[in-house]
Amino acid sequence: MRPSGRQINEMRKVTIETNVTMHAEGSCLIKCGNTHVLCTATIDERVPPFLKNSGLGWVTAEYGMLPRATNTRMRREAKEGQSGRTQEIQRLIGRSLRAGVDRVALGERQIIVDCDVIQADGGTRCASITGGWVALKLAVLKLMKTGQISSDPLVDPVAAISCGIYAGQEVLDLDYPEDSEAGVDGNFVMTGGRLVEVQMSAEGATFSRAQMDGLLGLAEKGVAELTALQLAAVR
Amino acid sequence: MRPSGRQINEMRKVTIETNVTMHAEGSCLIKCGNTHVLCTATIDERVPPFLKNSGLGWVTAEYGMLPRATNTRMRREAKEGQSGRTQEIQRLIGRSLRAGVDRVALGERQIIVDCDVIQADGGTRCASITGGWVALKLAVLKLMKTGQISSDPLVDPVAAISCGIYAGQEVLDLDYPEDSEAGVDGNFVMTGGRLVEVQMSAEGATFSRAQMDGLLGLAEKGVAELTALQLAAVR
Amino acid sequence: MRPSGRQINEMRKVTIETNVTMHAEGSCLIKCGNTHVLCTATIDERVPPFLKNSGLGWVTAEYGMLPRATNTRMRREAKEGQSGRTQEIQRLIGRSLRAGVDRVALGERQIIVDCDVIQADGGTRCASITGGWVALKLAVLKLMKTGQISSDPLVDPVAAISCGIYAGQEVLDLDYPEDSEAGVDGNFVMTGGRLVEVQMSAEGATFSRAQMDGLLGLAEKGVAELTALQLAAVR
Amino acid sequence: MRPSGRQINEMRKVTIETNVTMHAEGSCLIKCGNTHVLCTATIDERVPPFLKNSGLGWVTAEYGMLPRATNTRMRREAKEGQSGRTQEIQRLIGRSLRAGVDRVALGERQIIVDCDVIQADGGTRCASITGGWVALKLAVLKLMKTGQISSDPLVDPVAAISCGIYAGQEVLDLDYPEDSEAGVDGNFVMTGGRLVEVQMSAEGATFSRAQMDGLLGLAEKGVAELTALQLAAVR
Amino acid sequence: MRPSGRQINEMRKVTIETNVTMHAEGSCLIKCGNTHVLCTATIDERVPPFLKNSGLGWVTAEYGMLPRATNTRMRREAKEGQSGRTQEIQRLIGRSLRAGVDRVALGERQIIVDCDVIQADGGTRCASITGGWVALKLAVLKLMKTGQISSDPLVDPVAAISCGIYAGQEVLDLDYPEDSEAGVDGNFVMTGGRLVEVQMSAEGATFSRAQMDGLLGLAEKGVAELTALQLAAVR
Amino acid sequence: MRPSGRQINEMRKVTIETNVTMHAEGSCLIKCGNTHVLCTATIDERVPPFLKNSGLGWVTAEYGMLPRATNTRMRREAKEGQSGRTQEIQRLIGRSLRAGVDRVALGERQIIVDCDVIQADGGTRCASITGGWVALKLAVLKLMKTGQISSDPLVDPVAAISCGIYAGQEVLDLDYPEDSEAGVDGNFVMTGGRLVEVQMSAEGATFSRAQMDGLLGLAEKGVAELTALQLAAVR
Repeated sequence: MRPSGRQINEMRKVTIETNVTMHAEGSCLIKCGNTHVLCTATIDERVPPFLKNSGLGWVTAEYGMLPRATNTRMRREAKEGQSGRTQEIQRLIGRSLRAGVDRVALGERQIIVDCDVIQADGGTRCASITGGWVALKLAVLKLMKTGQISSDPLVDPVAAISCGIYAGQEVLDLDYPEDSEAGVDGNFVMTGGRLVEVQMSAEGATFSRAQMDGLLGLAEKGVAELTALQLAAVR
Repeated sequence: MRPSGRQINEMRKVTIETNVTMHAEGSCLIKCGNTHVLCTATIDERVPPFLKNSGLGWVTAEYGMLPRATNTRMRREAKEGQSGRTQEIQRLIGRSLRAGVDRVALGERQIIVDCDVIQADGGTRCASITGGWVALKLAVLKLMKTGQISSDPLVDPVAAISCGIYAGQEVLDLDYPEDSEAGVDGNFVMTGGRLVEVQMSAEGATFSRAQMDGLLGLAEKGVAELTALQLAAVR
Repeated sequence: MRPSGRQINEMRKVTIETNVTMHAEGSCLIKCGNTHVLCTATIDERVPPFLKNSGLGWVTAEYGMLPRATNTRMRREAKEGQSGRTQEIQRLIGRSLRAGVDRVALGERQIIVDCDVIQADGGTRCASITGGWVALKLAVLKLMKTGQISSDPLVDPVAAISCGIYAGQEVLDLDYPEDSEAGVDGNFVMTGGRLVEVQMSAEGATFSRAQMDGLLGLAEKGVAELTALQLAAVR
Repeated sequence: MRPSGRQINEMRKVTIETNVTMHAEGSCLIKCGNTHVLCTATIDERVPPFLKNSGLGWVTAEYGMLPRATNTRMRREAKEGQSGRTQEIQRLIGRSLRAGVDRVALGERQIIVDCDVIQADGGTRCASITGGWVALKLAVLKLMKTGQISSDPLVDPVAAISCGIYAGQEVLDLDYPEDSEAGVDGNFVMTGGRLVEVQMSAEGATFSRAQMDGLLGLAEKGVAELTALQLAAVR
Repeated sequence: MRPSGRQINEMRKVTIETNVTMHAEGSCLIKCGNTHVLCTATIDERVPPFLKNSGLGWVTAEYGMLPRATNTRMRREAKEGQSGRTQEIQRLIGRSLRAGVDRVALGERQIIVDCDVIQADGGTRCASITGGWVALKLAVLKLMKTGQISSDPLVDPVAAISCGIYAGQEVLDLDYPEDSEAGVDGNFVMTGGRLVEVQMSAEGATFSRAQMDGLLGLAEKGVAELTALQLAAVR
Repeated sequence: MRPSGRQINEMRKVTIETNVTMHAEGSCLIKCGNTHVLCTATIDERVPPFLKNSGLGWVTAEYGMLPRATNTRMRREAKEGQSGRTQEIQRLIGRSLRAGVDRVALGERQIIVDCDVIQADGGTRCASITGGWVALKLAVLKLMKTGQISSDPLVDPVAAISCGIYAGQEVLDLDYPEDSEAGVDGNFVMTGGRLVEVQMSAEGATFSRAQMDGLLGLAEKGVAELTALQLAAVR
């Protein structure tokens, strides 16, 4: 039934290659099927103004897409400024990652996670969160190794997956052909078995509480699998 | 327990005054407690380029806040451009309103709904959706009166309410003092008893599926009350 | 002869409702016929850089118009930046209000007056000045009540009115139907019986010194009436 | 009494050199004392969209200042966009020049007048209007010579002069040392012995109707002298 | 003598991997030592306005750098607009590639070459030109395969290499440690054994005609090697 | 053979008039045939942030063109921001001028050189460098006269000239009719007999090393003549 032939509750194949760039303090290339995102984490010893002398750390994210990451070339945002969609996505990534951070343990410093989509086939924001956490963790491990921080501010991984209603059926991990057809789809961010963000959206459609519950169940399954991959990647 | 003394499942008092400006084709001033939003609907016989000659209508929304709608004066967006938050909100309002529109019945024209916050005390995006639907409906009624459209493209009202976890408790319709304390809060948009958008967000916190379910229940109660008020307003 | 049936030297009905928003230090809603402007005054204990350590206060103004305040919807300035017209108007409002301020008595602080047009029918800049002074005065009274300033920095009200040549006749207080027809129109700002600003402008027309004198006479009459209303509003 | 030693009703020496650039259809360098403005007129056979197929012509103006035209170097506007002051000035120049144009006789074409201040010593907007008219006239004469227009759309010259109250005295044609001291100053635009624009402004001061009348008298004298120079320049 | 231990006339190891993204009509990942650039070519059947109905094709380029491609994270250009440096580089890439194109043979269509730096270690603009030509060629081959164009518009490869004076010595292919020390460096673009662009620049230094000649000789050697790699890659 | 009738190695007539504006610390109007550029130098006792407390001075440049400096009126950059071309040119001027500055002798201050093209006929960037050096020198002489600096930080003049291949022939100092035809042209900046910048560019053409050498020879001749004029101007 699905264009890719996957089962209803079957994710695409996910791989996470770490330390892919020589400059960043943490980095990975996450591939969720044909969606490829390069995630880098940069440690900045300065915090934003509102946290000066607070003793608290900060994690923020930026998101971008190469112009030809998509089937049809998109305008380069550097030429016209970030779209509302881009800003919305990077705010979501930042909030999600912060949900898994002990900001006292991190200390008064900032980690900036850049997520740049090299190739897009649906689910780029979820891949960015999942891969972004890996880059973040690698940067934190570097800080621990040098003794700049003593207790790990990242306990459970933060991971995200999309689910939606495709052809009347609740399915896990929409790829682009499904996403462009689905009237209802959403993104679920979880950590430690609990929810962090839920963003369900319907374009020209609606959904029931029962369907919502079904999607939550699928998301739990997907996130559990992603978490295992994240832990393997940073070990 | 709540700063306002309200029950856990008690909304703020809501009033909707219609036809409040002389120029707009539809308008209302919605007050949800101390949150006041002026909503106007403008009929534009031209559609966006991607809908030219499609026979389909469009509904879009813009959102703004007067600089001193808030406790601390905010920068005027006209001076520095719309923030990411503003764009995110107006995209949500537009998607939500479109969920309740039969775009064939509307015909190839656009209705622009402007939601301008005169005074803010939490829940401005939900008030904008609820009031925006009223302005939209009034504009549509004008089109029906003049015979420009023959069957009503708006069947069920679209309404929205916030819920969140405040002091460990699931509560309905957060005001600003609650919102600024709540670790978890969300916005629920519904129409005809079904969900349109769910946006749950946690800043420095997480929530369980059971809590999610509790919040959905509260939202259903709130939206039912709002829907009754909307129908009374446009009658 | 006038579209509204008013006498040549007759102003529209003016009402000034004070304390209309819960957050601002001073506020009013001024209605000059169908022109409605919400004015708020915000006290800011910081002054602009050029006044640091000068002991002098500052008053500035910003002006905006809701997109559907006008008959035809205007673009939202937040999306494209303030137009030249908007900047010109807010500079005029700021200069006018400062003319009535004893900046030593105000002390080294700034008051920002926001004038937002809710509904427009001609004369919005004059209504903004007249209502802006009321909001400013209410904020100053609050500073006096708390003892933050000891002598009143605002002596005489500042008020403004438009006059123009309509159908060959000098008339007081142009509404939109007159304004769009008048070849010559102007705005007169006065305080304490003296002039502060005069802005006469002719689009495709000219005027004589005698006509100029006639308009000044009408303006004096209008401002005297406005001043009485301002004093009543802040009492 | 005046820093320059001029009489109260004495203008600075004004010279107008024509045809100073090889490319423009009309051009002049106007020097009003130490204020030097290069004015060029460009004929554009296209009109703005709102005039398409109207048979009416248009005249518009743009104003700029070289960064070191002033005593202290100013930011280059190309780097940060036109200031409100710049836009206000160029709108004034455009309106003023249009007051002297028969737009039917001009025919459906546009003339753009660029006024660029090479050196500033007060009164740049007035010099721009006076010199701008000369550039405009020269461009129109070229159109008449080639037979593109048959009757002269420019009858009387449009000229402008500043007046103000300096050291308690009404004076003609303020230079920068006077302008920076004067509490009250204004710009008067005239054509054919009648007024086109009056912009009186007071920063921290006020003025009486009698003073206003005195300034108008000075302006009439100044404009008469400028008009003679304009006519000589274009002969 | 060189930090990398390379000979004076020795280039870094260069590899060109083709068809690295699923969406672009042509693509490659070029690695010049630690400088990695992803180049994609997009075929657009529309040409820029100035070429409409000319029968001529166009090739243009855009250049970007991921924020953490460099040792210190750079601001994301999408947030603040393209810098002068970025624009200068992409204009150079476009001009260089066009030098090797027969625009009549290409036909009235545009090919957009995007060069995005994944990792930077000096010489990114040269790598972009060399890799950009490969992506362009692959897109053109696709057009020939489908019969959309009949004769190959690309005859000789266009390639570029940097040379400079490091520690008093003329050296080929500067890496970042050399580039940041070199007082004199330049980029040489060649095709078919002839020069297309030469950009020599000295920051706080100068150079003689003899040195210039030496650098030209090194560049010829480097470009010859790159050309062989390009031809191998597209075969 | 050349449109102007000049010899192949003959520059246009160059004149340099100094001290042409009353405000700038150094200024000149350079005319290279019909290309006229006004250059002013402004002394600023503050340096850019990256030089604070370094003891080193800085020289930077900005470049602009009046809208009607060209045959066809160009958009005013103040309205739309500096184009890539403008930024590229002003970066070149700044780098070139700095090549002739002893930044220790200049002391921790900045000199800003503004080059504004009054009339353009090809070669505006070269005229800006040559004239810009004169303005810079005059400002430095003022600093030496007042004793603010003791040893001259400018030893040899920096001058620039264009050369290109026109009608198959290497020619010196292209004017606009030649420049718009030449497939290959370049700018050569020199000081003290040595090269500072070389920018050869070919649009739809290529050139040999022998041609490159011929152009270098022409440039040496031109710069020698310009240098003599610069020294005469500042004496």
